[in-house]
Amino acid sequence: MAPTASQADEDGSPVFGVKMPVGYRQWELIAPSHEAGDFNELRGILGNSIAMAAYREGTLPFPDGAILAKLAWKREPSSEFPGAFVPGHATTVQIMVKDSKRYASTGGWGFGRFVGGKPVDRAQHETCFGCHDAHVKNHDIVFTRFAP
Amino acid sequence: MAPTASQADEDGSPVFGVKMPVGYRQWELIAPSHEAGDFNELRGILGNSIAMAAYREGTLPFPDGAILAKLAWKREPSSEFPGAFVPGHATTVQIMVKDSKRYASTGGWGFGRFVGGKPVDRAQHETCFGCHDAHVKNHDIVFTRFAP
Repeated sequence: MAPTASQADEDGSPVFGVKMPVGYRQWELIAPSHEAGDFNELRGILGNSIAMAAYREGTLPFPDGAILAKLAWKREPSSEFPGAFVPGHATTVQIMVKDSKRYASTGGWGFGRFVGGKPVDRAQHETCFGCHDAHVKNHDIVFTRFAP
Repeated sequence: MAPTASQADEDGSPVFGVKMPVGYRQWELIAPSHEAGDFNELRGILGNSIAMAAYREGTLPFPDGAILAKLAWKREPSSEFPGAFVPGHATTVQIMVKDSKRYASTGGWGFGRFVGGKPVDRAQHETCFGCHDAHVKNHDIVFTRFAP
């Protein structure tokens, strides 16, 4: 296998082959969130232009080509403003890619969870769809709603 | 006074004359934050292209033309995922505009706090600079740091 192909495979998530999308950090904000408990994270969920158009127009299911990126950071108290909490170090980046044919068996979505730019293991990726499918109500298995 | 000018004046913040910038909701995310206590808000702080370039290059002070928009929503428990908190209804939008000449007496920044697209009263705007100036350490009186 050529080095380039090998590298590409290592960069894709197990099960789904989802990769970190180019330029995702510059995508628009869909909404922030706070994951309490052991996670103790602040998150920013971003969408590419296809995803944002679907959010703004209320299009469901999301069209093929929509990509969501959930960026997570540890939640830390601000050192400057009492009562405020701000992002600490980055933890995970989680990607959802809509491709209704390729991912037909998982609601049309492929999933990737990355730490330090590298995908986590297969076992973690095998839990994505079941959890989304069980919990999300009438929103194409996408948790995040647009915060206007 | 012509209706157009009158409307424009009403749309600007007291003290500073800062208005809601066109298209700010589509700006890039600088960072999310969580304001605890009575506020109980999730926030997303966005920046225009001049602000984002300054963040990425570490430029301080921020150059004239930089604009920051802090969007706030009530923090509500997710109805779908235990332990997660998501945006409820929108509360305030707070704007900072860098113009080192116009706002020379307030660190080069003009401030605007809006509820429902309308600026709040003069008394609230008279507190902006003093609080930023007293609390922010070596960051051009801007609280928010970039979350990579």
